[in-house]
Amino acid sequence: MNSFKKAVVLLSGGVDSTTALAVARNDGFSTYALSFDYGQRHNVELRAAKRVAKTLETHDHLILRLDLGKIGGSALTDQIDVPKSTSQEFMKAGIPVTYVPARNTIFLSYALAWAEVLNAFNIYIGVTAIDYSGYPDCRPEYIASFEEMANLATKAGVEGKDRFKIQTPLIRLTKAQIIQKGLALGVDYSLTHSCYDPSSEGLACGKCDSCIYRQKGFQALGLIDPVPYIQD
Amino acid sequence: MNSFKKAVVLLSGGVDSTTALAVARNDGFSTYALSFDYGQRHNVELRAAKRVAKTLETHDHLILRLDLGKIGGSALTDQIDVPKSTSQEFMKAGIPVTYVPARNTIFLSYALAWAEVLNAFNIYIGVTAIDYSGYPDCRPEYIASFEEMANLATKAGVEGKDRFKIQTPLIRLTKAQIIQKGLALGVDYSLTHSCYDPSSEGLACGKCDSCIYRQKGFQALGLIDPVPYIQD
Repeated sequence: MNSFKKAVVLLSGGVDSTTALAVARNDGFSTYALSFDYGQRHNVELRAAKRVAKTLETHDHLILRLDLGKIGGSALTDQIDVPKSTSQEFMKAGIPVTYVPARNTIFLSYALAWAEVLNAFNIYIGVTAIDYSGYPDCRPEYIASFEEMANLATKAGVEGKDRFKIQTPLIRLTKAQIIQKGLALGVDYSLTHSCYDPSSEGLACGKCDSCIYRQKGFQALGLIDPVPYIQD
Repeated sequence: MNSFKKAVVLLSGGVDSTTALAVARNDGFSTYALSFDYGQRHNVELRAAKRVAKTLETHDHLILRLDLGKIGGSALTDQIDVPKSTSQEFMKAGIPVTYVPARNTIFLSYALAWAEVLNAFNIYIGVTAIDYSGYPDCRPEYIASFEEMANLATKAGVEGKDRFKIQTPLIRLTKAQIIQKGLALGVDYSLTHSCYDPSSEGLACGKCDSCIYRQKGFQALGLIDPVPYIQD
């Protein structure tokens, strides 16, 4: 066990990042969760991230405010409607309008900065290239390229004391397999939040792509998603 | 001339980024300057960036507030003393405490996000690997790696409409050559600011590494640096 080793974990408070945090903890790391407040419509995410960070006993939880809204270009930060569909077609339509330009690159860059300050060399991110929305910055080739850049970018990387590793424990898993892994590690998914367009009370819409992937994952395991939906 | 093409230019308001902006403009781009307010001691930089952006007729100038102070790890954002020396030894001492972890990676990630929204494929950054402070994220191999990652990270890169290019027109130039290039393009360096530790009136200290490199550049050309110093 790496009982004295630290890992930075990107934590949105959804199913994937929560599972990634549980994996990092199970891998023996002392975890440092990093969340972002970027004017997203789904600010209810941050409340979920706080609940998860506390329950999974992170050593620290840093929430950074980002100005992504000023840059624009996404349904998640702009006033573009989040698309709704229950059809399978929706998932095959290419990169959706919920794509936030360079989002994971910005997130991972902050994680890298914090990791260097903490003398942590492992950064966990819960991306998946299986049941996902087609975002380019969730693919293995992107992650490998970021990792290479990270080791050229930093004092710690250049001095060669250790090598930064971007850990993607979920990248080859389906949503059902992710949930199964998290349940085996004791994750309580009722604490999480995935919806891109929740009601003012924080209820999930059940219709955005994030809700659909999530529900399919639980269904495939013969389980009921523990979070409340608007139509419930 | 690329009269309808856009370029994002990282602009701190110092000699290098101001010259990079002048080069981008001279290359025929409509320029979009990007600056950051990251709780740096040298906030006087931002006033310089505004003057420069206006004088060099940028199409837009976006200033984003960053939470780097919460991450820490640098004399520029923390309460660590900026080192002072007039000796040459100082410049050979390796990566200095003014190094901000992953700073250029964070800056370039935002530039990439904005470039994608603008449909701009050129990002200018005034890094130099000659008269510099030994920061790892100023080296050509780092820039090449970031560029490769950028084209894997983005919708525009993946769709292959065009390829993101990180333009580093100063990377092989000495400080004197940078100033010479800027003067040939009509840059007024009295508008710029470089000092890491200015007085409360905004006067440059003349002793930090940034001041020393700058002064050496002007001296090599037989010129007087037009900005005022504390000892003047």
